[in-house]
Amino acid sequence: MPEQVAPNGKLRHLISLKGLDRPMVESVLAKARTYIAAPDAQAPSDTSLTNYTVANLFYEASTRTRASFELAARRLDAKVLNLDVNTSSRTKGESILDTIYTLQAMHIDVFVVRDAGTGVPAMIAEAVAPHVCVLNAGESDTSHPTQGLLDLLTIQQHKQDIKNLKVAIIGDVRRSRVARSAAEALQLFDVGELRLIGPDEFLPDAEDFPGAHRFTDATAGIQGADVVMALRIQKERFDKAGEIPDNNAYFRRYGLTQALLRHADKDAIVMHPGPMNRGTEIASDVADGHQSVIRDQVANGVAIRMAVLSIVTDYVRSMRSSS
Amino acid sequence: MPEQVAPNGKLRHLISLKGLDRPMVESVLAKARTYIAAPDAQAPSDTSLTNYTVANLFYEASTRTRASFELAARRLDAKVLNLDVNTSSRTKGESILDTIYTLQAMHIDVFVVRDAGTGVPAMIAEAVAPHVCVLNAGESDTSHPTQGLLDLLTIQQHKQDIKNLKVAIIGDVRRSRVARSAAEALQLFDVGELRLIGPDEFLPDAEDFPGAHRFTDATAGIQGADVVMALRIQKERFDKAGEIPDNNAYFRRYGLTQALLRHADKDAIVMHPGPMNRGTEIASDVADGHQSVIRDQVANGVAIRMAVLSIVTDYVRSMRSSS
Amino acid sequence: MPEQVAPNGKLRHLISLKGLDRPMVESVLAKARTYIAAPDAQAPSDTSLTNYTVANLFYEASTRTRASFELAARRLDAKVLNLDVNTSSRTKGESILDTIYTLQAMHIDVFVVRDAGTGVPAMIAEAVAPHVCVLNAGESDTSHPTQGLLDLLTIQQHKQDIKNLKVAIIGDVRRSRVARSAAEALQLFDVGELRLIGPDEFLPDAEDFPGAHRFTDATAGIQGADVVMALRIQKERFDKAGEIPDNNAYFRRYGLTQALLRHADKDAIVMHPGPMNRGTEIASDVADGHQSVIRDQVANGVAIRMAVLSIVTDYVRSMRSSS
Repeated sequence: MPEQVAPNGKLRHLISLKGLDRPMVESVLAKARTYIAAPDAQAPSDTSLTNYTVANLFYEASTRTRASFELAARRLDAKVLNLDVNTSSRTKGESILDTIYTLQAMHIDVFVVRDAGTGVPAMIAEAVAPHVCVLNAGESDTSHPTQGLLDLLTIQQHKQDIKNLKVAIIGDVRRSRVARSAAEALQLFDVGELRLIGPDEFLPDAEDFPGAHRFTDATAGIQGADVVMALRIQKERFDKAGEIPDNNAYFRRYGLTQALLRHADKDAIVMHPGPMNRGTEIASDVADGHQSVIRDQVANGVAIRMAVLSIVTDYVRSMRSSS
Repeated sequence: MPEQVAPNGKLRHLISLKGLDRPMVESVLAKARTYIAAPDAQAPSDTSLTNYTVANLFYEASTRTRASFELAARRLDAKVLNLDVNTSSRTKGESILDTIYTLQAMHIDVFVVRDAGTGVPAMIAEAVAPHVCVLNAGESDTSHPTQGLLDLLTIQQHKQDIKNLKVAIIGDVRRSRVARSAAEALQLFDVGELRLIGPDEFLPDAEDFPGAHRFTDATAGIQGADVVMALRIQKERFDKAGEIPDNNAYFRRYGLTQALLRHADKDAIVMHPGPMNRGTEIASDVADGHQSVIRDQVANGVAIRMAVLSIVTDYVRSMRSSS
Repeated sequence: MPEQVAPNGKLRHLISLKGLDRPMVESVLAKARTYIAAPDAQAPSDTSLTNYTVANLFYEASTRTRASFELAARRLDAKVLNLDVNTSSRTKGESILDTIYTLQAMHIDVFVVRDAGTGVPAMIAEAVAPHVCVLNAGESDTSHPTQGLLDLLTIQQHKQDIKNLKVAIIGDVRRSRVARSAAEALQLFDVGELRLIGPDEFLPDAEDFPGAHRFTDATAGIQGADVVMALRIQKERFDKAGEIPDNNAYFRRYGLTQALLRHADKDAIVMHPGPMNRGTEIASDVADGHQSVIRDQVANGVAIRMAVLSIVTDYVRSMRSSS
């Protein structure tokens, strides 16, 4: 694992929320808050990244996360290079590190990397030159740090102190990078209680998610929760088709319906990382209901990515002025 | 059908030319004329869309229309997000409206939508927030309003008053959104005579294209016409391969050749929406001949899209300053 | 072959290095040197192409060359339109020239074209309007002029006068546009000796590469060389699978290993156009070794493309101010 924070104290890479301390995360959230505008206001923008080049390397298909990073970079006036490469073509061509070295020689300042393989963003961060930054835009089922940050920011907008909150995550937690990064973010802020809800085969191993409570009964798990996060059933993460749960059966036991939500705190907020399978992991009236903060998550996602881009290029600037 | 014109009188959406009045269309044409330059001059540009974000959602493949909208937006200094999604993947992922809500939460101001399904642009326009605009970039065989406007603008550049003109459209009018939007534009300007030419199975039903005259004989239909528009044979719009006409047989009866064109007015202009199947619906020497205004149509397409983008963001601005 | 240099003496197209004289090439290299920065410095940029539009038409897949041209254009503040079209879809739609005429009507100033067919960039250059420029970004096995220029620039950075150098190119020279353009560039600068190394079936015909020496024995060919360029084994260029050499057998005879490199001059530089097949045409320790200038080639590639774009739009400007 590469050092994410440089010797001069500046954030350089964002590969995982593990290893970041609370002041660092607070500073990202504080910066992100400056990039939030009312839903009907014009998109915030500035020139933090003028003359910087950001390369989006997506080795796994994505529409929303790529759009979020692309808009974030462009609203900071960066030049953005999109490279959508599927993993199969990667094996035929040059190695991923040769691609990185090539792009680095083209004066890329920040690599935004999504990959289906655990360890790829860290490997790239270890390999790049000292003035280059790497951001993890989703890594296998391991880590999705900007998602964890946007979830934290969203919860903070709607709730008081994290350490008094009960947060329930429902779904395939075992295969979810979203859940892992959310848990890391929440535990850094001493979340009151973290509950993981799903059928046995969806719950993570005991050593994973330390301190979290596991529930196979959704009603029991959601009881009194202040935050309820439904995860997407990610069919692409199952090795065999037979392992994929039946949509209707899953919805009956774990779907986030109004009936289930009634067991949570009456002011509970509802979250989902998107894209949603309505009628599978969440009922439409809950997704669109007054407790839903799902669209806030999306807006906060752009703000978090703007904040992270702005902060890491601050590192790049510090390297250049000192050399 | 959503209201395209806002209560404050400003154009907000462009879904169809139906329901727009003549002064509104005149104002778009007038604005478009400011975005026209000589073929060898530098592309016109301004900063009307600085800090605005335009998302191009193309659920149906397109090179020229996407390029035209993309250049239009970027020459007005917008930030442009291209999302090329094929329809098949749409069914697997989230619903189109969830995609729209997600992008709207990312502060998209204008959605440019192309879709193979009738009603999709209107459905999106109904769904978006009050400060967001939707432009139809081609909808099934129903509507292609910017094409209708560019055709109108092109005719006006070469001919006097529309109400004295005989306009002949040759081809698969029944399946043509180009023909529908051209007819709507022309009839708003009281076109002298609108003639639809093609084999019976290509001619629209009687209630469609009110006031137009139908011809199965091309020579009779083109007689004395001031404007002759050949439509592309769109093989992708036929349900069964057996329905697709034989290229040579079609060309002999309906291909726009010099011999056929001689029956039109001697100053007739020749139009085609592109891309052309040379030797199927139009002869090469006609496409490239001195009566052809096909390249003017392309140039006018960018100008019309710049005008529409500029005008609808004027609406967005009016919403923000009033809130 | 179209005139690449306009009557007013300005470079207009770059289709091939053939027919360019040495002062013209010197001026491109001189301009490119102004676009080179230290590897850890910010990317050079200026506003030479403000309000110009560059269309990248890649009819053959490419990541690195397209990225290089795209970054070059955007760092000069051009508007860039990317059109990745595979050749198969080209045959179904409109002709390539109709695509060009359409884009030209949209006020494209510079076309950057990569195509698998010999003669396509020249055909386009013959067809475009007098104020429009065409740059060849890789043409079949025929020509890749910006690659030739970046190779020349890289050699000049590391070596004294070209006319005293022995340059050895190892690999499938017969099918290599890289080798052809490098040879043209080097011979314009009176390279001391050009050696082509490979198995018989990889060596070009006698009339090709005039003045070059052919070697089937790698050790003999590399003896005392000042510059050693390994070519990529391009499996996509072989007509039949059976013609593709076995990787291991090829590597044993022609792979650029430390053992082989030891026969070159002790200060020899190692080049490769990328993407590399490590372990096939080049050993990893040579690719990453202290004699390797492969990353310089990549950086110089962006600089050369910026120089060419800047110079040809200087031609466009001259056409407009004179009209």
